[in-house]
Amino acid sequence: MSLLKEFDLRDTADISRELYQFAAELYPICRSITGNGIRQTLLSIQGKIPLQLSEVPTGTPVFDWIVPKEWNIRDAYIKRCDGKRVVDFRKHSLHVLNYSIPVQARMPLSQLRSHLFTLPEYPDWIPYRTSYYQENWGFCLSHNQMLTLQDGEYEVCIDSTLEDGHQTYGECYLPGRSKEEVLISVHACHPSLANDNLSGLSVATFLAQFLSGRDLRYSYRFLFIPGTIGAITWLARNRDAADRIRHGLVLTCIGDASGFHYKKSRRGNAEIDRAVAHVLRHSSETGEILEYSPDGYDERQYCSPGFDLPVGCLMRSVWGKFPEYHTSADNLDFIRADQLARSLRVCVEIVDVLEGNRRYRNLNPFCEPQLGRRNLYRAVGGIAISEEISARLWVLNLSDGEHSLLDIAVRSDLPFTAILDAAELLSENKLLAVLNENVSENAAREPGAEAGLSSRDQSSEGEKSAAANSGTKRVSSK
Amino acid sequence: MSLLKEFDLRDTADISRELYQFAAELYPICRSITGNGIRQTLLSIQGKIPLQLSEVPTGTPVFDWIVPKEWNIRDAYIKRCDGKRVVDFRKHSLHVLNYSIPVQARMPLSQLRSHLFTLPEYPDWIPYRTSYYQENWGFCLSHNQMLTLQDGEYEVCIDSTLEDGHQTYGECYLPGRSKEEVLISVHACHPSLANDNLSGLSVATFLAQFLSGRDLRYSYRFLFIPGTIGAITWLARNRDAADRIRHGLVLTCIGDASGFHYKKSRRGNAEIDRAVAHVLRHSSETGEILEYSPDGYDERQYCSPGFDLPVGCLMRSVWGKFPEYHTSADNLDFIRADQLARSLRVCVEIVDVLEGNRRYRNLNPFCEPQLGRRNLYRAVGGIAISEEISARLWVLNLSDGEHSLLDIAVRSDLPFTAILDAAELLSENKLLAVLNENVSENAAREPGAEAGLSSRDQSSEGEKSAAANSGTKRVSSK
Amino acid sequence: MSLLKEFDLRDTADISRELYQFAAELYPICRSITGNGIRQTLLSIQGKIPLQLSEVPTGTPVFDWIVPKEWNIRDAYIKRCDGKRVVDFRKHSLHVLNYSIPVQARMPLSQLRSHLFTLPEYPDWIPYRTSYYQENWGFCLSHNQMLTLQDGEYEVCIDSTLEDGHQTYGECYLPGRSKEEVLISVHACHPSLANDNLSGLSVATFLAQFLSGRDLRYSYRFLFIPGTIGAITWLARNRDAADRIRHGLVLTCIGDASGFHYKKSRRGNAEIDRAVAHVLRHSSETGEILEYSPDGYDERQYCSPGFDLPVGCLMRSVWGKFPEYHTSADNLDFIRADQLARSLRVCVEIVDVLEGNRRYRNLNPFCEPQLGRRNLYRAVGGIAISEEISARLWVLNLSDGEHSLLDIAVRSDLPFTAILDAAELLSENKLLAVLNENVSENAAREPGAEAGLSSRDQSSEGEKSAAANSGTKRVSSK
Repeated sequence: MSLLKEFDLRDTADISRELYQFAAELYPICRSITGNGIRQTLLSIQGKIPLQLSEVPTGTPVFDWIVPKEWNIRDAYIKRCDGKRVVDFRKHSLHVLNYSIPVQARMPLSQLRSHLFTLPEYPDWIPYRTSYYQENWGFCLSHNQMLTLQDGEYEVCIDSTLEDGHQTYGECYLPGRSKEEVLISVHACHPSLANDNLSGLSVATFLAQFLSGRDLRYSYRFLFIPGTIGAITWLARNRDAADRIRHGLVLTCIGDASGFHYKKSRRGNAEIDRAVAHVLRHSSETGEILEYSPDGYDERQYCSPGFDLPVGCLMRSVWGKFPEYHTSADNLDFIRADQLARSLRVCVEIVDVLEGNRRYRNLNPFCEPQLGRRNLYRAVGGIAISEEISARLWVLNLSDGEHSLLDIAVRSDLPFTAILDAAELLSENKLLAVLNENVSENAAREPGAEAGLSSRDQSSEGEKSAAANSGTKRVSSK
Repeated sequence: MSLLKEFDLRDTADISRELYQFAAELYPICRSITGNGIRQTLLSIQGKIPLQLSEVPTGTPVFDWIVPKEWNIRDAYIKRCDGKRVVDFRKHSLHVLNYSIPVQARMPLSQLRSHLFTLPEYPDWIPYRTSYYQENWGFCLSHNQMLTLQDGEYEVCIDSTLEDGHQTYGECYLPGRSKEEVLISVHACHPSLANDNLSGLSVATFLAQFLSGRDLRYSYRFLFIPGTIGAITWLARNRDAADRIRHGLVLTCIGDASGFHYKKSRRGNAEIDRAVAHVLRHSSETGEILEYSPDGYDERQYCSPGFDLPVGCLMRSVWGKFPEYHTSADNLDFIRADQLARSLRVCVEIVDVLEGNRRYRNLNPFCEPQLGRRNLYRAVGGIAISEEISARLWVLNLSDGEHSLLDIAVRSDLPFTAILDAAELLSENKLLAVLNENVSENAAREPGAEAGLSSRDQSSEGEKSAAANSGTKRVSSK
Repeated sequence: MSLLKEFDLRDTADISRELYQFAAELYPICRSITGNGIRQTLLSIQGKIPLQLSEVPTGTPVFDWIVPKEWNIRDAYIKRCDGKRVVDFRKHSLHVLNYSIPVQARMPLSQLRSHLFTLPEYPDWIPYRTSYYQENWGFCLSHNQMLTLQDGEYEVCIDSTLEDGHQTYGECYLPGRSKEEVLISVHACHPSLANDNLSGLSVATFLAQFLSGRDLRYSYRFLFIPGTIGAITWLARNRDAADRIRHGLVLTCIGDASGFHYKKSRRGNAEIDRAVAHVLRHSSETGEILEYSPDGYDERQYCSPGFDLPVGCLMRSVWGKFPEYHTSADNLDFIRADQLARSLRVCVEIVDVLEGNRRYRNLNPFCEPQLGRRNLYRAVGGIAISEEISARLWVLNLSDGEHSLLDIAVRSDLPFTAILDAAELLSENKLLAVLNENVSENAAREPGAEAGLSSRDQSSEGEKSAAANSGTKRVSSK
C-alpha cells in the first residue's frame, strides 16, 4: 500500500490538532541560531522522533564561516524613569534585537532611537530583526508603541550573554533499503514566529514520525538547524552524507491559508522538481512553481555551486512576500491546523512519488500484450476505456527503459498513484520487470555514484560517516 | 511535377463521387475481424488496386496473441411470440453483438435483457458492441426500441458460426526507387459504420490507386486489416518490412464535416509528424495536432516500444470524441463526398512532402550567388522580393547539409511546394546538389539501416520478405 | 568604469546634434554602390574616425560575383519641348534610376513611360529604384508629377558614365587586447535616404569615435560598404578577418521614431543575439526580437551558410515595413536627433555586454561565503536584500565555469551592469576568479579558433591580412 493510502486512513482532525498544538507549544520560546532556545526546541522534537543532537563549539571553522559565540537571554526591557517597563521582552520574544549583546544603561530617548526598530507601514506589528555577526543591541517594537514614548531618560537592560559555547542542531536519520538519501531540512532558529518556521518544524517532525519504522526505499534525513550557519555547518561536517542526497526539500512557511508554492532546485529539472510539480498539479489546492534563485532559506547552501544538490523549497506563502513575514503578525492566528495537515499530506504524496519512481521494462515490447485474457481490459468492446486501463496502456507503452513512472505520469497527465498501481498490477502479471532497483535517476550526476557503487555494503556507511565527525561535544551515532 | 499538382488537374467532383460511392457500396456488409464480411470487402478493394490477400489460420500465435476462430453470420433476430421480428439483423448489421456465438432459444424478456445493449443518452441510435475474445452473444438496439418490448417470451436466434478458419487481411505494395517504406494502415473490420472506417478505407484505396504505377522515391505499403489483431498479425509476420518503414499513417474517421486532427507518433518529432503538421498548417482547413497516447487504433501497435515506428494517425473528428462514434448514427449521412476528397488531397500533399523532402548542399555557400544574372531575381532593385524569390533565398541559406527541405519550409513558414520548387530550380541552375538520395533522415534510428544498406539490391527484397510468411493459406507474391 | 557610464557622462544634446548634423550633411549626395558619391561620403567619415579606404577594380571576381563598372552621374532631366525641366536630378538624387546608363534622346511620352517609376499608393513621394546589374535607364518621380505630364515629345538626358573603375569601401579597425573581432557593418550606398541608411552610417561613425583609443577587450571593425556587393567583396578579400569575427551587428534604419527591432543572426542563439535581447529587455524603449530570415541587408552575406557568422541586424523600424522606406519620404524629417542618440547609447550598452561578458569561478563554491564580514551584505538581518546584494548572490551561485555573466543576467533578469558590478566587486574581494580571458564563448564554433590560437602574436596579424589583399589600387595598412 502506498504511504498516501496509509496516511489517508488516519483521522485528519487528529493530525491537524497535533500539528497545530506542537507549533503552539513551541511558539513562546525565544529561539536563535545558538543557545538554549533552539536547544529546548530540539529536545521537544526529540520527544516525538529519534533525534540526534549535535553541539558544535564556538570557533569551529565551517567553510568560509566560523561557528559564532553562543547567545542566551534571560530578560530585556526599556524602563521609564517611573520604573514602568515600556518595552518588555517577557511579553514578546521579538522585542529584543536577536543576538543583542548585554547592555545596562540610562540614556535619553534621542540616543536610544538608533537602537529601536519599528515598521511604520504596519504600525501595530513588532518587526523581527537580528544581528548575528555584527555586535549590536536593540529593541523591536510596534511603531505606535514608539510614538507614545515621551522624551527623557530611559533605563535599558538586555540581560544576555554572548560567550564561547556551542551551536546546536538536530538530525533524525531513518535508514532505508538504500543509503541514498532524501533530505528534509527546516530551520529552527526563529523565535516567536509561527509560519516561519514553526509550521515547517511541525510538519517535518510529524513526517519523520509517520515514516519512522517503515520499510523505505531511500534513507531519510531530517535536519532541524539554525538557518544559514546550520546548513553550512552540517554540510561542512557531512560531505559524505551530502554526496548521498538524491532528493531534498526545505520546508518553510507551510501553515498559512495560501495555496502552495514550490521553488525549484538550482538544477531546475531534478526529479524532486518534477515530482513536486506533478503532485501539486494533481492536488486539489493551487500550486505555483517558482524558478530557483539564490536568495531564500537553506536551499541557498544545498544549491551552492560546489554542492548543486537537487533540493527545492516547499512553501505556502512565499517567504518575504506576505506582509506578516518577520513580524509579530506571523503568530498562531496566522497558521491553520487544517492547512498544516494538508501540507503534511502533500509531503507524504511527494515521498510516495520518490519511493515509487522506478523504470520498468515491458516484457512484451512488440505490440500490446493481450490484457483481456488476463482480466486487465474491459469486457465488451466498442466503448471507451477507463482511466485505470489507460494507465496500464501508458505504462506498457513507455516502459522502454528510458521512462520512469514519473515521466509516464507527467506525459500521460495521470496521477502518479494511478501509474504506480498500473505498474504494480502489470508486474504481478509478469508483463513488466523493474529496472535498477537501487540506482536513482540522479545517481549519474553525483561524483562517485556510478551504478556499481550501489552494491556496496549498506549496513555501515551511515555510521562511519557520523563517527567521522570529531571535535564535537556529543554526536549520537545513528 | 509534384503529385499534388497532378492531383489538382483531376476533376474534384469525380473524385468526390467515387470516394463516396465506394464507401456506400461497402456500407451494408457486416464486417468483423475475421470472416466473409472483411473478405468480401477486400475483394471489392482488389477490384480497384492490386491487393494481395493473406489468410492466417486460427490458432496462429502472433506475439502475445493467438489468431481467433473465424466468425461468420447469416441471420439473427429476436422474435415475438406472434412471430414478428422485433430486432432483425437483416435490417442493420449493428443489431448483433459482433462475434456473437450461435444461439437458438426461447426466453422471457427478463432473461434476455442482460444480452441487450442500448444507448440511453441517444435513444434512437443503435450502439456498436463487440466481444471478440470472450464468448458471448447479444443484440444491440436503440433504447427507444427496447422500451417498446413487452414482457413475455421471445425467440432469439443468432445463426452464426465461430470455428477454426482464417483471419484475412489485404496488402497493396507499390514498389519505389528505395525499399524504404511508407505505411498507410486502415482497419477494415467495422460493420455498417461510415466514418469509422469506410472513410479511411475509401481514401486509402484511392490514394493507392493514385500512386500506383508512378515513379516513386519510397515504396508504399497499404494495409487493410482487422483492428488490433490485424496489425499485430502483420507485424509478427513481417519484421523485416516493419524495419523498413520510415513513415506511416493510420487513416480513420476522415470523412465527416470536421477539420483535421493529427495524432503524433510516439516519437513526437518524427518526419511524418512534422510533415503532417506543416501540411495542415498551410491547409485551408483547420488542423489540430494531438500528442501521442497509447489508446486509439493501430498506431498503438506500430508505436509499441519494441517497434516505436514513426506512425501517426490522421483523422477529422477524433475517434471516441464524437457522439455518433460507434453507433448507427455513423452512417452514410455522417460522411460527405467533398470531405473525403479533401482528405485524399491532404494525403497526397503529405506524400508529396515525404517524396520531396531531401537535404541539399549549397554549391556557393560563401555569400549569396548572383541570382540576377541567372534570371532568378527581380529585375529592378529597391522593391520587395516575392515569395518565390524568398523561397530561393531560404533554400540557399539553409542548404548546409543539416537542414532538410521540410526543415526549411517550417523555419521559413513557406509552403513545402514553394520550397521544393525553389530547390528544383536552383538545382537546375547548378546552385544546389542533392545529398544522400537513398537515405531518409530516420534511417539512423532503425537497426541495421545504415547508409550502406540502401545500396543493396532492391529488386528482390520485397518478395523475399513476403515469401518468408509461411503457414498461410495463400500469400500473393508482390 | 563601464563604457555606458562614461557615455552617460557626456552631454546628450551635443551627441544628438552631432549625429543628426552628420546625417544632414551627407543627405544631398547621390550615392551608389560605386562612384564619387560613396567616395565623397567615406571621405567625410574619414574626417571623424581613422578610416582606411579600399578601391577594388571593376572586374575583380568576388565569390560568385564580379565587381561592376563604376557609375558616376553629373546631371539628368526630362525636358519639355519648351525647354522646362519637368524632372530634374539637381532637385533630388532619387529622380534618376540609380545606375542608369547614359542617354540623350527625344521621344514621345508614350515611349518614355516604360522608363518612369512612380508610387501610385503614395502619389506625392518619389520612389527609389536601382538597376545595378542590368543595364537600363529611367527616372523616378511622384505619381502626381507624372499625371501632369502632357502627351508630346520630351528631351531626356542622363549625363552619367558607366565605365571600368573601382568599387570603394571604408574600414575602421580599432585594435583591442584580443584579435577576436566585433564587426559593425553599415551600407553606405543609398542616395538621399535618411533612415536607410544615413542613420546607421552616423551612429556607426560616432560609435567608432567613442570607442577609438580605448583599452578594449575585442578588436572592432567598422565597415562602411556598398550593400550586398560590398559585403561580398570584403568577405572574399578578408577570409582571415572573417574567421576572427566573434560578434557582429548590421546597423540600419535606426533613426526614426519607432522602438527597436533586432533581427537575430542565423544561429539564433549566438552571444550577440542574447546580448542584444538582454539589453533591449532592460531598455526604457520597446524592443522586439525577430527571427533570422535570408532577406534584409548585409547580414544575408555574413550569415550565408559558408560563413554563418554571429551577426544580427539592429533597427528601429524594420526595412521594407514602413511606407517611407525607399521613397523620398525617408528624408531628414523622418529621423530624429534624440532617437539617433538613444540608438547610439544602446549600441554602447551592447558593446559593454560583449566587453564584460566572461565566465568566473567561485573560489568558495561550497556554501555561500560570509559576505557580511566583507561588508558585502546588509547590516541588520530580517529584512529583504537589495538588488545589489541579490546580484552578488546570483554571481556566486552560477559562477561554476558553465555560466557567463550574460547567462547570469538573463537567468536572474537583472541588468547586465548590476551583474558585472557584482562580479568585479567579488573579484576584488578574492571571491571570484575570471576564466579564460582571451577566449570568447563562440571560439569553439570557429574553424581553427581553438583556445591556443588566442596566444598568437597579436601585433602583426591584422596587417598581414590586409597586405594579402593584392590587386587593389590602394589599401591603407592598419
